[in-house]
This record gives sequence, C-alpha cells and structure tokens, in this order.
Amino acid sequence: MNRKVAVILSGCGVYDGSEIYESVITLLRLDQRGAKVQCFAPDIQQMHVINHLTGEEMTESRNVLTESARLARGEIKALHEANVEEFDALIIPGGFGAAKNLSDFATQGAGCTVLPDVLSLAKAFAEAGKPVGMMCIAPTMAAQIFGRGVVCTLGNDDDPAAAAAREMGIEHQACEVTEIVEDSRHNLVTTPAYMLAQSISEAATGIYKLVDRVLALTGK
Amino acid sequence: MNRKVAVILSGCGVYDGSEIYESVITLLRLDQRGAKVQCFAPDIQQMHVINHLTGEEMTESRNVLTESARLARGEIKALHEANVEEFDALIIPGGFGAAKNLSDFATQGAGCTVLPDVLSLAKAFAEAGKPVGMMCIAPTMAAQIFGRGVVCTLGNDDDPAAAAAREMGIEHQACEVTEIVEDSRHNLVTTPAYMLAQSISEAATGIYKLVDRVLALTGK
Repeated sequence: MNRKVAVILSGCGVYDGSEIYESVITLLRLDQRGAKVQCFAPDIQQMHVINHLTGEEMTESRNVLTESARLARGEIKALHEANVEEFDALIIPGGFGAAKNLSDFATQGAGCTVLPDVLSLAKAFAEAGKPVGMMCIAPTMAAQIFGRGVVCTLGNDDDPAAAAAREMGIEHQACEVTEIVEDSRHNLVTTPAYMLAQSISEAATGIYKLVDRVLALTGK
Repeated sequence: MNRKVAVILSGCGVYDGSEIYESVITLLRLDQRGAKVQCFAPDIQQMHVINHLTGEEMTESRNVLTESARLARGEIKALHEANVEEFDALIIPGGFGAAKNLSDFATQGAGCTVLPDVLSLAKAFAEAGKPVGMMCIAPTMAAQIFGRGVVCTLGNDDDPAAAAAREMGIEHQACEVTEIVEDSRHNLVTTPAYMLAQSISEAATGIYKLVDRVLALTGK
C-alpha cells in the first residue's frame, strides 16, 4: 500500500491555528494505517495570536509554518513546495486557523477568500480525482475548491457556519460527531470534529472514520 | 469508576515544552477509558523558545501555563492550584519542557533541581500511594520525587539520560518503546515514548499501556 498523504496545518492551537487534537488524531490514524505523511503549512504570519488561557488577543506575531512545525515535530514543509503528483490524498484538519490563516472565513463569512496556495493545491487534488478529507470548520473552503453543489458537513444544520456554507453553494448535510459525510462525486469526506465534539474520544471516532474512508478512496 | 487524573504539562512543543503527541495520546486514552482529566502547568516563563522549523532559539519569551493552554483547549489551571486529594492519579508527559521547565535536567543533568510546585505535588501523590505515570524524559525527576532506588525507564541503558539517572540513584531498566516499566513499591509506571519512538503509533502503543496500567493501579 504505502499511500502518501499530504496534511495542511494552519498553526498550533484551536483559537488561532490547527486544532491540536484533530491534527494529532489524524496523524496517529494515518500512521496506524501505514500511510506516509508529509505536513505542510503556509509560510505567512498568523491572522493574530490568541492567549488560549484567557481567550484574549496577544500583542505578538507568529508565523503559521513555524508554529505548525510544533505539531509536526519539525517535519514540515512550506505549502508552496507541495506537489499533488507525490500524494494519494489530502487532509485538512480544523481549528480556527483553517478559517483565519488558510482562508478568511472567520472574518468574511460567505464572502471569504481561500489562500491561493491552499486553493491551488486542493483544486489539483480535486481535478486529479484524489480523495480529500476536511474536518471541523475546514469544509467552509469546499465551494471554492470543488464548486457549487459540493456536499459536506459542518455539524448541525442550524449552525451559522452551515448557513454561510449554503450561501456559498455548499449542500450542507447535518452529521453526528462520530460520523462522516461523503461526496462520492468529488471524493470528499468531512466530519464535524470540534464543531460538535464534547470530548476528545468523540472527535477521534469521527476522525478515524474520515481517515479510514479517505485511504479507502485512494484505491477507487 | 469516574477516576480523576491530574496531568502536568510544560508548554506546547517537543523542543521547549510538552511533547504534543505524547500529551494528546495520554488525554485521548484517559478519555476513552472514562477518566476525568484536569491539566495543570506552572505559571512561569519557559526556559526559552525554540523555532521548531529550524531548531534555533528565538528571541521571544513565552509562559508555560499560557502555551500549555493550547494543548488543553484552554481547560487548564495553574499548577499551584492542584490538590492531591481531588485526584486518583498523576501523569506527566515528556518533551524537553519536562527537562527545561519542570526541572533543569536539560542543563544540569544529574545535578538538576525539580520545580518546587512539581516536586511537592508529585511527592504528595507518592506519599498517598496514588499511582504516577511518567514518560519520555520526565522520569529523570523520579529520584527526587520517590527517593533513591526508584525503578524506571528512559529507554536504552546506554542513553546519556539513563547514565545521569543512575547517578541520581534511579534504578534504570531498559524498555522497548511499546512497553512499560512498573515500580510496584512506588506505584510508578514509565514508558520511553519519544526517547525511542520512530513513529507516533509506536509511541501510542506504550502510552496506552501506561495509561491503562495507571488507571488499574488506582484500584489497588
């Protein structure tokens, strides 16, 4: 097998970067299933830095690639180095970083723009028919990557993020935290993770299913 | 059951804080087994900040409690608030933070000092006969907590950390990354984790065993 999976990180910490639990559980499951992983992150400044103890903004500035390197034990490359031909699948964990650093959904909502390097890489996977997994808030980028009519989940139908997603042309499907939604036409798999998770093991159940399904789809 | 476990973090990132994978895998397994967790970290400045992309020291300063809050999604308390009577067990993940922020083993070796708040809390668990789990480099604090003759592992016998541990009076036992060492007299369980791990799933195998054994020992 030896499938190769690219993972895009967006910092290190739920409020201004990648959600740490989602990212680690993704990497753990990929490794348990024998997949080879390469992490990537954009070499840009974070939108801001949040003190995760108080929830307040800090006056400092941090780089998304440098902070994401913490989550990858240093084994990470700049996003512009990623080449779709070297990989069988792409996974993007959530956390506010996905909506603050990979796109500006956190501030612009349905009018958001996806970072060009993220958009071009993800579109390349889509055009090659290679499976993509997105979790938590990350699927808010799906319309720009796959086009209107793409099917995915952000958890509850009445979540404001789901409303914004519908406005962008996403066909939103409600989904339990322990389940996944699959868009078979686009080979896209999504799970709510910390849009809904009340505990780390709840998140893990859905993420394990997402990773397993993404790897299964590499054999389609 | 509903056992309560205190986890001491030391920052967020292998080179200057808690090893992220070890910490998340510990929290995942504790939650999967139904344990209630409270994370703690000392409210002090980190020894230094390491750029995890380059390995170089950065000129900024970060707080151990504030950065550890990233690993706990904000659900963390200052270490001095921890009370042994509220918990059934204590677990300390590794990462250089355990040897740079919780003690000064990284710079002082066998002549190291353990942070007073860490030492007093861990000693309170030891004196109450409540089980303690330590992984990776964290067991270098074991002699000061449990006294000379305490049995634990830092992975390979010929590792410099194991030599320093012996100098402090630790009875070092070599151990595979997927296994644990138990000091039955002290209810202390240790595993090498990233002292030896070549992959995240290897580390997880040993850490799952450590967590399971620590929880089992709460029923002794």
